[in-house]
Amino acid sequence: MSSQFILVNLKAYKEGMGPRAHMIARAAEEVSEESGIQIGVAPSFFDLHPLSKHFEIPVFAQHLDGVVPGAFTGHVTAAAVRQTGAVGTLINHSERRLTLAEIEASVRAATEAGLVTVICSNNDMTSAAAAALSPTYVAIEPPELIGSGVSVAKADPGIIQRSVAAVHAVNPKVKVLTGAGIQSGECVKIARDLGTDGVLLASSVVKVEDPAIVLRDLVSLL
Amino acid sequence: MSSQFILVNLKAYKEGMGPRAHMIARAAEEVSEESGIQIGVAPSFFDLHPLSKHFEIPVFAQHLDGVVPGAFTGHVTAAAVRQTGAVGTLINHSERRLTLAEIEASVRAATEAGLVTVICSNNDMTSAAAAALSPTYVAIEPPELIGSGVSVAKADPGIIQRSVAAVHAVNPKVKVLTGAGIQSGECVKIARDLGTDGVLLASSVVKVEDPAIVLRDLVSLL
Amino acid sequence: MSSQFILVNLKAYKEGMGPRAHMIARAAEEVSEESGIQIGVAPSFFDLHPLSKHFEIPVFAQHLDGVVPGAFTGHVTAAAVRQTGAVGTLINHSERRLTLAEIEASVRAATEAGLVTVICSNNDMTSAAAAALSPTYVAIEPPELIGSGVSVAKADPGIIQRSVAAVHAVNPKVKVLTGAGIQSGECVKIARDLGTDGVLLASSVVKVEDPAIVLRDLVSLL
Amino acid sequence: MSSQFILVNLKAYKEGMGPRAHMIARAAEEVSEESGIQIGVAPSFFDLHPLSKHFEIPVFAQHLDGVVPGAFTGHVTAAAVRQTGAVGTLINHSERRLTLAEIEASVRAATEAGLVTVICSNNDMTSAAAAALSPTYVAIEPPELIGSGVSVAKADPGIIQRSVAAVHAVNPKVKVLTGAGIQSGECVKIARDLGTDGVLLASSVVKVEDPAIVLRDLVSLL
Repeated sequence: MSSQFILVNLKAYKEGMGPRAHMIARAAEEVSEESGIQIGVAPSFFDLHPLSKHFEIPVFAQHLDGVVPGAFTGHVTAAAVRQTGAVGTLINHSERRLTLAEIEASVRAATEAGLVTVICSNNDMTSAAAAALSPTYVAIEPPELIGSGVSVAKADPGIIQRSVAAVHAVNPKVKVLTGAGIQSGECVKIARDLGTDGVLLASSVVKVEDPAIVLRDLVSLL
Repeated sequence: MSSQFILVNLKAYKEGMGPRAHMIARAAEEVSEESGIQIGVAPSFFDLHPLSKHFEIPVFAQHLDGVVPGAFTGHVTAAAVRQTGAVGTLINHSERRLTLAEIEASVRAATEAGLVTVICSNNDMTSAAAAALSPTYVAIEPPELIGSGVSVAKADPGIIQRSVAAVHAVNPKVKVLTGAGIQSGECVKIARDLGTDGVLLASSVVKVEDPAIVLRDLVSLL
Repeated sequence: MSSQFILVNLKAYKEGMGPRAHMIARAAEEVSEESGIQIGVAPSFFDLHPLSKHFEIPVFAQHLDGVVPGAFTGHVTAAAVRQTGAVGTLINHSERRLTLAEIEASVRAATEAGLVTVICSNNDMTSAAAAALSPTYVAIEPPELIGSGVSVAKADPGIIQRSVAAVHAVNPKVKVLTGAGIQSGECVKIARDLGTDGVLLASSVVKVEDPAIVLRDLVSLL
Repeated sequence: MSSQFILVNLKAYKEGMGPRAHMIARAAEEVSEESGIQIGVAPSFFDLHPLSKHFEIPVFAQHLDGVVPGAFTGHVTAAAVRQTGAVGTLINHSERRLTLAEIEASVRAATEAGLVTVICSNNDMTSAAAAALSPTYVAIEPPELIGSGVSVAKADPGIIQRSVAAVHAVNPKVKVLTGAGIQSGECVKIARDLGTDGVLLASSVVKVEDPAIVLRDLVSLL
């Protein structure tokens, strides 16, 4: 059985909120059971608790603030995320960039709360830096692939390979996700063959009418 | 009956999460029913839905992002906040500062979603600027009073009066909250006498063992 | 003689640094003398002193931090800008957004240092908010026109007119600049006819081989 | 001869601007010549060119933006910093925090421009992450020592030692500066004995009447 991990970021897409979030989580659970491939979802803060309660798949926050409970307004603590039943969190997504000090504090707080951590990075150098913070995963989002519709299969695969090498040179225990340019089962297979431990993707699952069809395709070549 | 509004910001205090958030909301509901004074709470994102469901008092978000649903990770949309049952939101709290463009977008998105808006400001000039964005309320948090333990009763009241005048010169429909230095019923009364329409406060309610006692004191002189 | 003001933002364009900054300032000075129209330049921090020293035209900073001298690293104080000989500053440019509290502090610090202030805004609501801070100018940069190559002449002029009205409703002393979509003398004339007191522009002057030709065209219909 | 490096951050202190910046640079040059210890200064942007021109000591920027020349307003490019005659730059100072992506871009741009790079960090984990970006130096500023008046000699030295070890585990070529808690020659000696290659300090040199006296003390035990 493959140990690849497929993580679907529901972002703030209207097609990924409320009932649609449930529908996508249900599809992920079905395809995960069929295939034996682990599939997780990262919904809005408000869907963390309902999805964690209703489904067996791993549910991730899209962000958290690495602060200890206290005088912080509009912040999301690791403890509060854990309380929802979520099991992990994205950190430093390209749409929610953090300072280095904040990333480190977030990884630390999330880890202490028992959460799996996925730091997003943009190239091999920042991937190596992220690895030094000992997250569970680093997800490489090459800017030239983000939301471009360009498949990682067609783009220069060098950045993924260099990032995997850079991450492992710093910390061989840190796993790597391919974080952009994933649209099909072929992309997922290529990502695996480039040495990564799974993929982080969004619109190609969230914005389609029937996410189960796409999810089945994504796991089809593993 | 007084039209003063008391809004309790639960922040990310551990004493304002989960069961404690329920306890504070229940106290607010009781004291509100007894006194006829409107009391609202602004809990963590995760407590918006449960508190809105279980209590009749107004529930506010502590922050939202003025973006339309789409490719935004870790963001909180106005539509999603409204969906929880919350009726309003803080914007630009001193612990969650926004750019001017973001504040305007947040007020607009929140208003379109039917939410009451409270823009926090730090002096008379920024209060006037906030008023130009036509929120429901501007909450003035003089930096010298925030978390200082200094009562607005003891401090120079000029900044509150100048802020009320500045807000009304720009937009007479905008209401004003005194946003710092509130610890007692006397402070609430002084805030009203200075021309504001209520108070925004936090630790003096959230961090005490029995919030109902403090809340009863707060409304006692209205 | 027209009281219109033309302000050229040299940004961090390589065509606007060092010797090119001098060349553009010289062209601005020549065209200003010929036409009687006031033309200013906003170069990089490093060119503020040399340009202020060598030319009579108004020289503006592109940004400053509204902090009093003290423990701030990598900050630019109003006093230091004034010391270079510069006479004004942009604040909150769309490429350098600030919080509302920072904008207010910047206007205050710049004004105390004797500098002309230009707050950039993105629509009529934020223009009104900016006006409440009593800057010398508000420069409206409609996002749909920024760097679009679309002339304000061709675009919907409503946003400019609404912004002028909104600014003057809050503070009639504040002047307004049209801050995007300016490419030609016709655009400058239209901006004036829409009620603004001048224009803020960049690439159409900075990135051409002979800025004097463009500057002569810009003032030709005033 | 010691290869220790003493870098004085003039911040935005009024005692570190203009004539005072010259006076401090002159003192640094004198003490450097007397002692053979390299002493550099990091003045305001406006003093980079004059100090680089008048003195032989290394002059550093306090910050730069890792952008290529282009449409950026209020930004400081590496090329422009190099053009002033400066030889290095601080990056990510605790008073000017950057995202991980910005830090990496800044190191890259500065290195390409031939500048020495000093990334500031706050603990052993972020120091290791910074080292993965291959700067010349990492300067550790333990938050508990910044501006505290507490000497690194008196505080727990563990954080410095762990940071040196963490940096070298990731990249043995990266040098380390002790970035807070330095007030005397004894502190400088302790910093060296803890394995760092020099110190980054500010107020204890900048805010005194005669910086030469302090600088002589700082190098006295090397």
